[in-house]
Amino acid sequence: MATIDVPEQVSVLADAEALRKACKGWGTDEKAIISVLGHRNAVQRKQIRLAYEDLYQEDLIKRLESELSGDFEKAVYRWILDPADRDAVLANVAIKKLSPDHHVIVEISCTRSPEELLAVRRAYQARYKHSLEEDVAAHTKGDTRKLLVALVSAFRYDGEEINTRVANSEAKILHEAVKDKEFNHEDIIRILSTRSKMQLMATFNRYRDDHGTTITKNLEGDSGDEFLKALRTTIRCLNDPKKYFEKVLRNSIRRVGTDEDALTRVIVTRAEKDLKDIKELYHKRNSVPLDQAVAKDTTGDYKALLLTLLGKED
Amino acid sequence: MATIDVPEQVSVLADAEALRKACKGWGTDEKAIISVLGHRNAVQRKQIRLAYEDLYQEDLIKRLESELSGDFEKAVYRWILDPADRDAVLANVAIKKLSPDHHVIVEISCTRSPEELLAVRRAYQARYKHSLEEDVAAHTKGDTRKLLVALVSAFRYDGEEINTRVANSEAKILHEAVKDKEFNHEDIIRILSTRSKMQLMATFNRYRDDHGTTITKNLEGDSGDEFLKALRTTIRCLNDPKKYFEKVLRNSIRRVGTDEDALTRVIVTRAEKDLKDIKELYHKRNSVPLDQAVAKDTTGDYKALLLTLLGKED
Repeated sequence: MATIDVPEQVSVLADAEALRKACKGWGTDEKAIISVLGHRNAVQRKQIRLAYEDLYQEDLIKRLESELSGDFEKAVYRWILDPADRDAVLANVAIKKLSPDHHVIVEISCTRSPEELLAVRRAYQARYKHSLEEDVAAHTKGDTRKLLVALVSAFRYDGEEINTRVANSEAKILHEAVKDKEFNHEDIIRILSTRSKMQLMATFNRYRDDHGTTITKNLEGDSGDEFLKALRTTIRCLNDPKKYFEKVLRNSIRRVGTDEDALTRVIVTRAEKDLKDIKELYHKRNSVPLDQAVAKDTTGDYKALLLTLLGKED
Repeated sequence: MATIDVPEQVSVLADAEALRKACKGWGTDEKAIISVLGHRNAVQRKQIRLAYEDLYQEDLIKRLESELSGDFEKAVYRWILDPADRDAVLANVAIKKLSPDHHVIVEISCTRSPEELLAVRRAYQARYKHSLEEDVAAHTKGDTRKLLVALVSAFRYDGEEINTRVANSEAKILHEAVKDKEFNHEDIIRILSTRSKMQLMATFNRYRDDHGTTITKNLEGDSGDEFLKALRTTIRCLNDPKKYFEKVLRNSIRRVGTDEDALTRVIVTRAEKDLKDIKELYHKRNSVPLDQAVAKDTTGDYKALLLTLLGKED
């Protein structure tokens, strides 16, 4: 379930005019920007951008970038983009870092639906004139590269049909490899990057039934091993994305110095999807409501936007 | 340029009726089937199937399969399918063979456009409830698996922009690996499976300029090495698909005992695309027109269908 609160009637023209007014003149009316954009879904935000361009011969995104700054600017920019285009931007930022954020690549490739991931790959090409897998491959190496390239290239079967025989045999293959600490075994990468999510869930369940422990537990080890870390993230994203997102939020808030990038990323990418469920998980796990935790860790317009996206009344 | 000859005016209903008549009663009128289907493009063939189903509550493809037999049946079946669905069938047949036909997988993944390959992956899932890469991975192994899975999963950038600096550096990487006979070097697979076709052409050209010989020449070696064979096929398909198809046709005809599967495959998959150009290359290379060579090596209705698809007057 989504958290954003969208009114039944929306006038795209009135929204464009309100945004223009908020940006015009000396100083910017951030509250007005939040009260419009924070209550519009992806389709409406796109229409607002088109209407704005039509009315004022100016790119709304560029205008907002020039008016705003800091974490608030970043969050508005990520929020206003089409979901696929936003993921393309997030992936590109993650890849181009001096030390690439592998978990962002894993997150985008494993928590989006197969069709959504295709849309991201299309958007990536339109924006960067390269394929996503090409840039991932060029900026990573070794086993991590093998895993990440396979994950971003996947177009998994998205149906219900599973094969119990395959689940049994692949749970066994995974266990053998894990037991022998052959974490980079090519079958592990093959299974995780090609099987459907339903099939993988059956395989992970079988693993737990047979061995009394989850595969992620068995993969704990050297926390400095980037491949192993990416592998664990992969399994968590495939197996239970909501639980994974809860943990990302928890870590982003719990840190000394909030990790705004992670916090913004999860809130803007899930607000129209399943942030309500993630909020519940968070509350249960941390004994404090997510909006309260976010409010405590952030300030100003940035805080106001996040809370709006989290569904808090203005 | 295509070879098939499609009349300006087509009545889908009349076509469905003609096919019904050809199938009805004792004996089948194969000539009538060829004279309709051999002159209709993919969109029209689909409309004919829909009209036939509407009129007679019967699946035209199933009916034709029950009426026809041998190479002719196979060729009609492959021809009548939507191109993406046909490729899905060809890929599945190739994978499920006791000793999989790797070159068919390479051919489909490297000679189709990025968007066409996506359509094949979609069609494959609809038909087989698995992803294409999943089945390829489950039926191959070792380096060949690495290469094939990467190729079928690719969604290459399809634009014109190339990077000369990358072409130079990657021509060098390829040459180093080839020189050291490290044919399974992960950079070779990465480059061939992620770069755009335009970029790869620039890289191959640079390779030739720097070393006075083509990379495929440098990859000749042990003809029993299946990985090396797949690698050469990959480069040929990416670099010059028409030349590649000419060679497949040449080999299929030249063999003692024609390779009907290859002959049918190239003719049905290229007849609406570039078979005219491939015919010209064939004529030039073999000093005999392709239709003459096909006519000499085939018989009966099968021969009549192939020649029709090759654009010969009935």
